[in-house]
Amino acid sequence: AYSEKVMDHFEHPRNVGEIENPSGVGTVGNAKCGDIMRIYLDIDDNQVIQDVKFKTFGCGAAVATSSMATELVKGKTVEEALGVTNKAVMEALDGLPPVKVHCSLLAEEAIHAALWDYAEKH
Amino acid sequence: AYSEKVMDHFEHPRNVGEIENPSGVGTVGNAKCGDIMRIYLDIDDNQVIQDVKFKTFGCGAAVATSSMATELVKGKTVEEALGVTNKAVMEALDGLPPVKVHCSLLAEEAIHAALWDYAEKH
Ligand code: FES
Repeated sequence: AYSEKVMDHFEHPRNVGEIENPSGVGTVGNAKCGDIMRIYLDIDDNQVIQDVKFKTFGCGAAVATSSMATELVKGKTVEEALGVTNKAVMEALDGLPPVKVHCSLLAEEAIHAALWDYAEKH
Repeated sequence: AYSEKVMDHFEHPRNVGEIENPSGVGTVGNAKCGDIMRIYLDIDDNQVIQDVKFKTFGCGAAVATSSMATELVKGKTVEEALGVTNKAVMEALDGLPPVKVHCSLLAEEAIHAALWDYAEKH
């Protein structure tokens, strides 16, 4: 039911962890399942995302989309990162079953929350 | 929101993996969130569970309850293992938030399915 890319990012998630003194942090909850996602961003003076880490209690779909989303925003500017949609992340994963689409939204929402947190501080 | 024991079993899950040529396998799905759980049992001639492994795409609550449930049934007889309830697993974890109780049922159902699979073969 899951694509090879989803299984790869689920079994070997990229960028799991925390960043000390991050430029921005975003924490969001999933009302449908009660799961939580947190994303940490390290952004340099040129507004380039140098590092990004995530932690989640969510399911495999949440882990895989967050892993892919962090890969897609790393090295991008803040403005470019705002343009990385959930649709782009799901396409990069070769899709997700419809029942898991709500899980994939956690990553996009947490990245936006972390970018917002950064913007408020700068 | 989660107990220390839940976080410990989520971050360091016990008995993750597969068993080759298992005595019994149980696979169950969670209709509410679309997640899947599979449990493998290795049972000896005295009907004692020598080894147990699990795999899941489920969330942290599913991982933690499966980890604890496999610890509780390991070394037990088939009959004793049938008596390990979801309630006992949750108590051993110092509880779960109400919204995550349905996730914890995956482990109990998968163990019962694996014991049933074993019974059918013997
Ligand atoms: S079921 Fe909660 S994040 Fe997928």
